[in-house]
Amino acid sequence: MTQKKYFPIIISSPSGGGKSTVCDEILARRNDVAYSISYTTRKPRKNETDGVDYYFISREKFNQMLKQDVFAEWAKVHGHLYGTSKKVVENVLNKNKHVILDIDTKGARQLMSAYPQSLSIFLFPPSMKELENRLRKRETDNEADIQLRLKNAKQEFADATDYDVLLVNDDLDRLVEKILEIIDNKSLK
Amino acid sequence: MTQKKYFPIIISSPSGGGKSTVCDEILARRNDVAYSISYTTRKPRKNETDGVDYYFISREKFNQMLKQDVFAEWAKVHGHLYGTSKKVVENVLNKNKHVILDIDTKGARQLMSAYPQSLSIFLFPPSMKELENRLRKRETDNEADIQLRLKNAKQEFADATDYDVLLVNDDLDRLVEKILEIIDNKSLK
Repeated sequence: MTQKKYFPIIISSPSGGGKSTVCDEILARRNDVAYSISYTTRKPRKNETDGVDYYFISREKFNQMLKQDVFAEWAKVHGHLYGTSKKVVENVLNKNKHVILDIDTKGARQLMSAYPQSLSIFLFPPSMKELENRLRKRETDNEADIQLRLKNAKQEFADATDYDVLLVNDDLDRLVEKILEIIDNKSLK
Repeated sequence: MTQKKYFPIIISSPSGGGKSTVCDEILARRNDVAYSISYTTRKPRKNETDGVDYYFISREKFNQMLKQDVFAEWAKVHGHLYGTSKKVVENVLNKNKHVILDIDTKGARQLMSAYPQSLSIFLFPPSMKELENRLRKRETDNEADIQLRLKNAKQEFADATDYDVLLVNDDLDRLVEKILEIIDNKSLK
């Protein structure tokens, strides 16, 4: 009998591309996948909870953790610092669960180096117009933020060439089914 | 009754991304879509026919046509010149058919300006590994060409932000069905 393998699952998309929704849906359907909670210096959005969505910390604390080499990846995105703790990732894998990471392309590249056994998935929006609609519907960003996020999408699309799997986020249910299939195939290989 | 609209359909993908196969499949299924045959200075591949796949012409002839402002778009790709004649495009539209254009991202951008009513579609490969496999299977390029095409994919991914519709080319049948649905929706709007 083949031993099942557990690995980091890296999910990236441009801002508003729906990576958080996709991760939530995967977590809701599967007991053998757990979320890697990141550290961030940005302020919580409405409906975000400390210790659930992120560990919200000060910039001073973040810099201190950086010096202690706590992070498997970290990045500055839209002016805020984000980091993934190595201990958080390894704790999940040691419990025989896949660890899912919802991160930007800069952080993803560092994670791919730190964990070469990762499965990396990039989600494209169905169109830039749809991406813009989603950002506006979210009502969390001002106009300048939205324009910055749309502009950044160009570089993020280019970064997508680093990923194992490319998918378009048009039909959530079909997308999640497809991702679960890809996870299971890799897990049993 | 709504009058059906006819427009250019621009299909782009990185080299090896399968845009020609997708165009051929659409043409095979639909009488109201016709191909825009491009002019090129590159040599025909095996199985390519002059006047069917391309009009294969000399660089001298191409430069002469450029001076006569014959082209709606033209580009130098991998060292070769490619151009789309305005007359070819307009002849097809005047026959009440959509005109399908299988072109690189540089040419596509010019066409979007020349024909703002166009429907532009970018096809991503399911992964870069799959793109590389397809390029190797094609057996038309040497190793340096393959590496150049893979390297160019990064810029082509970034260019994809200009397109109306983003799709992944994983399941040909489903992809073509989806494209036909999008064409019909726009045609009747």
